[in-house]
Amino acid sequence: MKLSGMLALDRSDERSLQTQLTGQLMRMIQAGDLLAGEHLPSTREMAQALRISRNTVVAAYDMLVGEGYLESQMRSGFQVGSAAQAFQTHPVNPKAARRRTRTPDMPSAPAPFRPTQPDVTLLSLQIWNRHRAHAFKRGGSLLHYQSRFPVGLDELRQNVAVYLRDSRAVRCDWQQVAITTGSQQALFLLAHLLLRPGQRVYQEDPGYAGARDAWNHAGATVVPVPVDKEGLRLPQDRTAGPSLIYVTPSHQFPLGVCMSLARRLSLLRAARNWRAWIVEDDYDGEFRYESAPQPSLQSLDEQRRVIYIGSFSKTLFPSLRIGYVVLPPELVDGFAALKAIADNHGPLVDQATLAAFLESGAFYSHLRRCRKHYAERQSYFLEQAARHDLPLHFPITGRGMNLAGMLPDGSKDRTWSLRLREAGLDVPPLSSYAVEPVRPGLLFGLSAFDKHAIQRGVTTIARVFDGSFKGSRSK
Amino acid sequence: MKLSGMLALDRSDERSLQTQLTGQLMRMIQAGDLLAGEHLPSTREMAQALRISRNTVVAAYDMLVGEGYLESQMRSGFQVGSAAQAFQTHPVNPKAARRRTRTPDMPSAPAPFRPTQPDVTLLSLQIWNRHRAHAFKRGGSLLHYQSRFPVGLDELRQNVAVYLRDSRAVRCDWQQVAITTGSQQALFLLAHLLLRPGQRVYQEDPGYAGARDAWNHAGATVVPVPVDKEGLRLPQDRTAGPSLIYVTPSHQFPLGVCMSLARRLSLLRAARNWRAWIVEDDYDGEFRYESAPQPSLQSLDEQRRVIYIGSFSKTLFPSLRIGYVVLPPELVDGFAALKAIADNHGPLVDQATLAAFLESGAFYSHLRRCRKHYAERQSYFLEQAARHDLPLHFPITGRGMNLAGMLPDGSKDRTWSLRLREAGLDVPPLSSYAVEPVRPGLLFGLSAFDKHAIQRGVTTIARVFDGSFKGSRSK
Repeated sequence: MKLSGMLALDRSDERSLQTQLTGQLMRMIQAGDLLAGEHLPSTREMAQALRISRNTVVAAYDMLVGEGYLESQMRSGFQVGSAAQAFQTHPVNPKAARRRTRTPDMPSAPAPFRPTQPDVTLLSLQIWNRHRAHAFKRGGSLLHYQSRFPVGLDELRQNVAVYLRDSRAVRCDWQQVAITTGSQQALFLLAHLLLRPGQRVYQEDPGYAGARDAWNHAGATVVPVPVDKEGLRLPQDRTAGPSLIYVTPSHQFPLGVCMSLARRLSLLRAARNWRAWIVEDDYDGEFRYESAPQPSLQSLDEQRRVIYIGSFSKTLFPSLRIGYVVLPPELVDGFAALKAIADNHGPLVDQATLAAFLESGAFYSHLRRCRKHYAERQSYFLEQAARHDLPLHFPITGRGMNLAGMLPDGSKDRTWSLRLREAGLDVPPLSSYAVEPVRPGLLFGLSAFDKHAIQRGVTTIARVFDGSFKGSRSK
Repeated sequence: MKLSGMLALDRSDERSLQTQLTGQLMRMIQAGDLLAGEHLPSTREMAQALRISRNTVVAAYDMLVGEGYLESQMRSGFQVGSAAQAFQTHPVNPKAARRRTRTPDMPSAPAPFRPTQPDVTLLSLQIWNRHRAHAFKRGGSLLHYQSRFPVGLDELRQNVAVYLRDSRAVRCDWQQVAITTGSQQALFLLAHLLLRPGQRVYQEDPGYAGARDAWNHAGATVVPVPVDKEGLRLPQDRTAGPSLIYVTPSHQFPLGVCMSLARRLSLLRAARNWRAWIVEDDYDGEFRYESAPQPSLQSLDEQRRVIYIGSFSKTLFPSLRIGYVVLPPELVDGFAALKAIADNHGPLVDQATLAAFLESGAFYSHLRRCRKHYAERQSYFLEQAARHDLPLHFPITGRGMNLAGMLPDGSKDRTWSLRLREAGLDVPPLSSYAVEPVRPGLLFGLSAFDKHAIQRGVTTIARVFDGSFKGSRSK
């Protein structure tokens, strides 16, 4: 083992073995001895080669992942992170430049139980492609620039408005609907439209990092707000308010809470007093298995302060990259102008295809099929987890694409997540979504994986936990 | 005529009829009597109804278009601009809210001679769709999120690198290539990556407004730099330099100049002294009919200061929305991180299709066919223009998708452009691209229009000019 041969741990050193290992790996990365993309030995191999405990290696790798020096890749283990290139603009090692070239990679399917992934095999590509072929037959106009449509084709905006009114009780005219490149672009553009540097944003904690990144990019200060079993718990001090509040009320990401009606009304009142915008991210509100989906927060809003966003990434397929935002009327023109500067407009053939797919009703049958399968998968996972007596507690079930599984208090969710990752499972720790300390847990996405994969996955989880926490199962 | 009945021009007023007409229309728009999207009578109808000269109406409309109160739409004439809604948040007229709803619109093909439009009918959709079907056969992975590929699929980045090395002499490794939503997104992200508020950008004047918008959005100050027949003419005072210089050296937009080698070298030297980035926008460098295309500016750059951008909008079809940027190595990671925040990544099925289309060679045969047709169309247009003795002079020919036609000195290019627009032609005035005063002229895009359309268009132009400038043809 070449790498381990370059490491020298000294048991007589007053610093711990973990500190020594972390420090030596860090310096090798800084010096360019280890280059971005380069693979590290697994924790097991490294522990054996250095004759130290595997937990020491796991803790050292974990720390380096947290600092951005390492990345952990499904099945292929750990590799030097691409951010590490920042340290390597002048690599000490002259071989560096040659070795830096990364081998081209192919896109791949998500590993179990990566959260918030739809099962793309449930979509009939034949029907999708038929609508696409039909869209083409209208003549060549779909291939041209259409600068008059920066926020999407009118036919798509109309169909999205109908869908959101019927399914999510969103109150809007089609002209309030803007089409974006996934909901991430909606977040990014809203950040730049609505926020000035130094303004404050309240965001659920734990919460969605992609939203935090967007607010931060516009120079805003993100204030983490805790979530309890009724949803976002606004601070008692109501004097200094934020400019924007970001929430996922239908199914809080990642904990899964559905915001109570009382909290919804109090949030709307607070936003009114603060003159703050509310961004409602309804990322998987479609998936509720035991009752009809909860209507959107936007439907309760009399003040036109709620901006509703969503996408077809979870209901159709993610790489379609079609999201939408429902804007209060006074923001429509400003958003369209910003979208035009940001990228002119999105791809139109897909937009026309999606408009026809919605209009024909094919979308709604697809959604029913997904809902049925996702409900079954969630139940099956819970059955299997109970059968293997996993040391996990699932407080909220019956909706969504993901389940938050709580670990016994005091356990380290990052360490367990890394162990599972080495075993080929992609189960992020809840602490990775949080700014403030949070109860330890893991997030399991079930929608994209069939029963066979779920069964194998749960067996793997049971093997990784292997009797840990015996008798201390979390409640 | 209802609208004209609401106007009252007074010939005894000391203000000119044009000033009165402009002011009255402006106040009606501000008051919400005329709403965004509402149509105005044509200049001819309005002139007849008010019994004033048509030139007075043209001048008044022109002024209102310049101020954003009106927009001129191909064939459908003039309508109240969407920006006018800003004045109308509290419309005086109570009918306003009801009337505001816009009728849904369909995408349409560009009118002659809209600049920088490819002929999308030259593309074989059959071959394109065959590559797309093939991409699908690789399994479902193309439908998933692929957050590891924020700047595009590796297979596409590789094929773009090969294409740019061979065709445009761009020096790069495939990992320097980032895929964007058209070149507009590349400009927008570069603005936010490289510029801080208050920093200066040198941009060719006249020049591309989409680039100016991007620099302005990041808070930079855009300094217009004149263009002569060798290209960008940098200011003599070389002490206070810019942070970024935006140029279109292969075929200056909109004038058509190809930057001389001496100017290229002097630009690179200046950028080095100023430690400024250069953004080379090679929007139609592929289209050179009388000799091989000029190699890119990037190919001369030893300092890695040139950022090269382009898109497949002009070589394939615009609504594909696939652009690219070739980044100096130290910007690669930062750009990818920003792209991930901006929209995660672009649609992947199109990216895989394009990669296969490039790799198969189909792209290169398509490009040859386009070049042949575009060359013929340009020659044919010049023949027809000469035959009709148009009062236009075309100083630069033999390359590009557009021709700048200079009008006699002292003529008003905006007025002529509006007249042509009323006749159904989309021929922007050169002054619309400029910040500083510029020689009057019109920009003709020829690539998207066949000989029949060119012949009819030139006849229409001849009718609109109808003997104006007799004997004063511009040189």
